[in-house]
Amino acid sequence: MTDQTQPPAVTEEQQAREAELVQRVLDSFEGTPDERLKQIMSAAVRHLHAFLRDVRLTEAEWKQGIDFLTAVGHITDERRQEFILLSDTLGASMQTIAINNEAYEDATEATVFGPFFVEDAPRIELGGDIAGDASGQPCWVEGTVRDTAGNPVAGARIEVWEADDDGFYDVQYGDDRVAGRAHLFSDADGAFRFWAITPTPYPIPHDGPVGAMLAATGRSPMRASHLHFMVSAPALRTLVTHVFVRGDELLASDSVFGVKDSLVKDFVEQAADAPTPDGRDLGGRTWSRTRFDIVLAPSGTA
Amino acid sequence: MTDQTQPPAVTEEQQAREAELVQRVLDSFEGTPDERLKQIMSAAVRHLHAFLRDVRLTEAEWKQGIDFLTAVGHITDERRQEFILLSDTLGASMQTIAINNEAYEDATEATVFGPFFVEDAPRIELGGDIAGDASGQPCWVEGTVRDTAGNPVAGARIEVWEADDDGFYDVQYGDDRVAGRAHLFSDADGAFRFWAITPTPYPIPHDGPVGAMLAATGRSPMRASHLHFMVSAPALRTLVTHVFVRGDELLASDSVFGVKDSLVKDFVEQAADAPTPDGRDLGGRTWSRTRFDIVLAPSGTA
Repeated sequence: MTDQTQPPAVTEEQQAREAELVQRVLDSFEGTPDERLKQIMSAAVRHLHAFLRDVRLTEAEWKQGIDFLTAVGHITDERRQEFILLSDTLGASMQTIAINNEAYEDATEATVFGPFFVEDAPRIELGGDIAGDASGQPCWVEGTVRDTAGNPVAGARIEVWEADDDGFYDVQYGDDRVAGRAHLFSDADGAFRFWAITPTPYPIPHDGPVGAMLAATGRSPMRASHLHFMVSAPALRTLVTHVFVRGDELLASDSVFGVKDSLVKDFVEQAADAPTPDGRDLGGRTWSRTRFDIVLAPSGTA
Repeated sequence: MTDQTQPPAVTEEQQAREAELVQRVLDSFEGTPDERLKQIMSAAVRHLHAFLRDVRLTEAEWKQGIDFLTAVGHITDERRQEFILLSDTLGASMQTIAINNEAYEDATEATVFGPFFVEDAPRIELGGDIAGDASGQPCWVEGTVRDTAGNPVAGARIEVWEADDDGFYDVQYGDDRVAGRAHLFSDADGAFRFWAITPTPYPIPHDGPVGAMLAATGRSPMRASHLHFMVSAPALRTLVTHVFVRGDELLASDSVFGVKDSLVKDFVEQAADAPTPDGRDLGGRTWSRTRFDIVLAPSGTA
């Protein structure tokens, strides 16, 4: 019995031939005028060849890889971006976020942007409702925006968006509805507050090749419940993040690796007769509430 | 002045966060039922994340990468396989060939298969002509097929195909022509001989995203002149290879890294009035001749 995770022994002569080929490919990029592009292509070549050599990829597996990428390309259109799903499910999107949003003092951590942000979402006033016609339990969200020195940030632009409780974002319905998204601005004390819907879990689109990959590897397409935030203000680093729901059993297996402990918050269930913070009449429905205090790093940091 | 090829310093804390993310992604593949698939996905994740971390990929560059792969996917159809071109031009195809065709004694070396092979090419007799209506200078090709013990291989199936002297394979014309390709069988002494056309250089298709990548990196799309062979016989390893033309100035810069020294042969120019090996009347044209002796490894080797 051989351990299949160990590559077979490769002769020194063969290793030399393979290494010589890598060098030839690297040499071909030597004339790249843009230094950064040269660096990226060279690193891509080194890691791609190291992968092929590590696993001793067979020619049939190479063909499967080509066919997989072809299928990813063919399902991708203006409404469906399967390459981003692939990047997300391999943790590459989250790693890119991590690299570019290096921790800065106590600034709020970033997570994946996702494919469902829309420019020009409607503006709501403080205390307004982002839900529109989206279905789900009402959820009161409040917090503050501060800088890392603790100063409140007035007038910060806060974009929020989320799926409805059927697991779909408005743009996934294919009509022109706008629901479950809005933007608002923090007040003079850096505070914000709005109504949303309590986040619920949903699967990433999994009827394509990425879904097949997840199925073949025993992985779930489900994302942990979350509400998206993008917060920007002059001279501060724009924050793209989520708030997650404490107690959600999917926190440990989020399909795009977006969960960070610091982003998990209590969503406290409220009885149907509990008075709302702004006196709103919810028509006898239960509701929830959460608090998300945001700290923005200075711009120009990582 | 910073050296742009050196990654910026990364704090230990940040390195730990990035490494922890890699581990989380690797853990997600732990439940993969197929051990080989688990091995491949794990290696892909390790090398992909190492690439991102090595170059400190920016979010804008990540987006460029997604857009590039999307363009590669969208130009790919039944007649155009841009992912194979990408694999070829990054040397990944040739590395896969190298891994799976490890040198065995003095067996002839393999090289890339390329996208232009066609099943059911016409059969010609020994001494026949593969050119059909393909334009180019006549070229007499002869050689033997042997095993590594030196025994002649009778009845080996020899597939040969090549571009015409305008640089196109028959299938690239988009009509149903069959030209510049055929198959034949070695005789009782393992010998073969046929007429072809003298190979000339041509570019790989370079009007798509792979062509743009080559242009941005100062690389040429040209392939060194070559004639394709695929040789098979019972109990022997099928050989996919080319014969290249000694003196071709593109030998050192073949766009798919297919050239191996052992596959470069003399194509000897012949005067218009030089007698042909089989007495064929070439109508006053010049011609060339070459010899390519083939040695097949036992099947089951690498």
